[in-house]
Formats: sequence, C-alpha cells, structure tokens
Amino acid sequence: MSAPRKRISVLRLGHRRERDKRITSHLGLTARAFGADEIILSGEEDSSALETWKSVTERFGGEFECRYESKPLSFLRRFSQDAGDGEPGEIVHLTMYGESWRESIKSIESDRPMVIVVGGTKVPGEVFRLANYNISIGNQPHSEVAALGVFLQSLIGQIDESKHFQGGEIQVVPSIDKKQVINLEEE
Amino acid sequence: MSAPRKRISVLRLGHRRERDKRITSHLGLTARAFGADEIILSGEEDSSALETWKSVTERFGGEFECRYESKPLSFLRRFSQDAGDGEPGEIVHLTMYGESWRESIKSIESDRPMVIVVGGTKVPGEVFRLANYNISIGNQPHSEVAALGVFLQSLIGQIDESKHFQGGEIQVVPSIDKKQVINLEEE
Repeated sequence: MSAPRKRISVLRLGHRRERDKRITSHLGLTARAFGADEIILSGEEDSSALETWKSVTERFGGEFECRYESKPLSFLRRFSQDAGDGEPGEIVHLTMYGESWRESIKSIESDRPMVIVVGGTKVPGEVFRLANYNISIGNQPHSEVAALGVFLQSLIGQIDESKHFQGGEIQVVPSIDKKQVINLEEE
Repeated sequence: MSAPRKRISVLRLGHRRERDKRITSHLGLTARAFGADEIILSGEEDSSALETWKSVTERFGGEFECRYESKPLSFLRRFSQDAGDGEPGEIVHLTMYGESWRESIKSIESDRPMVIVVGGTKVPGEVFRLANYNISIGNQPHSEVAALGVFLQSLIGQIDESKHFQGGEIQVVPSIDKKQVINLEEE
C-alpha cells in the first residue's frame, strides 16, 4: 500500500433480524477482517449483531467500530455532500446489476472517506443514484458477503494483521496442519 | 487463464438445516458464481439448499452441479487416493488457522481435480491431515462465504460470464446506474 486510505465504512441496508441474522453477522466480520474501519447496520435494530462484532474485536484486536443507523438514506445523502470534512464522500454500492469491479476499482479515489453500501432485499432506486459507483462482483447472484470480501481485498490489498489487529486477547498462529492459538492475556 | 483447470468441487461440512440455511445457500451460489463446478453438501440433509442452487443455475445458466454426501470423510479419504482417474485428487481446506493463501496458492497444481473443503462448526482433525493445503484467507474470524469467494477468485481469475453461464433464462446487463435484465426466453 502507498498512502494510508481514508476511513472506509460499510453500510448494511435492510437488515431483517431473524432472516438475515447470520449473513449480517458474517458481513460485519468480513468488513473487519478485510480492513474496513466500521460497519453501520440499518433496517431492523439488532443488538446481537452489534454484540458479536464488538466481542470479536475485543478478542481479536483492532479498532473496528459498529453502530446502528435508523435513517440510512438521509445518512447517504449527507455523506454524498459532506464526509465530515466539508467535502463529498465517496459512495460505492455493491450490486449484481453494476459495472464490473475490475474496471471501476481503478478509478476510485483513495483519498476520500468511503461508504460501501451493501443491499438487503429491495434496494431503493435512490441508492443507485446517490452512489458514485454501482459495482458488481460478477453479474451472477451470489452473496453480499463474498462480494464485500472480494471488493475490500482488491481495494485495500494485504493487511499486516499483527499491526492492524492490535490489543486483542487471542491470536491465531498460521499453521500448515493444525489449530494453533496464542492467549495473549496469559503471556 | 492458460490451460483449462480440472474440475473444482466445494465440500460444505457440517451443515445445520436451520442455523446455516442462508450461509450454506450463499456458499453454493458463491461457488457457482466464482467458477467452481459443483457443491457437495454434508451434515444435515437439506433439499431446500439443493433446490436453490438448481433453480439459480436454471435461471442464470451454466453447468453447476450439486448433491448431498452423507459420508464426507470417507469421500475425502477416497478422493485423496483417487480423484476418479486413478490418481490422487487435491484437497484444499479453507480455515482461519491455516497458512496464508497468498503464499500457498502459487504451489497448488492446476492439472488435478480439486475439492475445496469449507468447515461448519467443528472440523474433525482428520480434515487438517487429509488436506494437501490448510489455507487461511487471513487469520481473523470472518466468513466461509467471503473466504471461498476470495480464494476462488484468486485461483481461477476472471470468468467470461457469457461463455461460462450459457443456457439460462435471464441475464443481467452491467449498468452504471440501474437494474437491467434481459429475459432470454422471450427473445
């Protein structure tokens, strides 16, 4: 990586507490593992999703944040005008109907705060219009979780995990043939 | 891509019908969208998962297959000796405890049939031993769906969707700002 990227948030639209429970949970963990700074939950409120993300961050380290947003469209409208520094933020909408990420990813600016919007069931047409980029990770139906993982990993590249995820309680030691975990608190 | 790869199957271990319903469904769709040839379901039987995959393949095209396997470990033991052509098959186990995919992916042979094993809750130790590669897509907890997507996309590279997914009923037309779908049956 060259210069450090500006803040990357993931906005999960239209969460349904029962039906989307595990998909949304995986989505937040994927955001964290591939280097996003924050996940914003919208749709139905769900404290258990927020708890899962906080708990993983406590145990495995890093600065990952999460919160609930009751008005995601207002949030996006504001963000498209002002990312918090008086300048427009960049909105990337992941959708199977969008342009190929392999092309579009090259033109995304890395010096602007970004919100990556990930749909639930029905994404309002306004999201397509507010987005600077409507990007598909392939035009086949698959999974918002896979789409987010592939997109973030292409956008951010390799993370130095030992630096990025500091302050946790446990750490996995990569192994060719077994589970190996260090408990950092006992050391 | 150079020479066409041998058959790639994804084996989903330990499926639980209620709890894993959507994750497993997304996993199969991700396998299909990123170019695997087959998903093999194990754990609890679940006709609804198989139905979803078949229905998407009918509508969106391609040759993707799916089936249920009641004895996944026997299947892997056999496959590690004989991939169907009398020669050993290649087993790749995706796990957060494994070696980094960025390194290991280079040494994977592309001329052997491959089974990519994706865990459910508790993966038996024998899977780590049967696998030719225990590979992590980062050593952080995230999602088997994201892991599979990133791994397949690195292994296979770009798919020519119009060739790979032939014979479907509908096709998405990539667009910068809207949903656009062609109904191929009406043409």
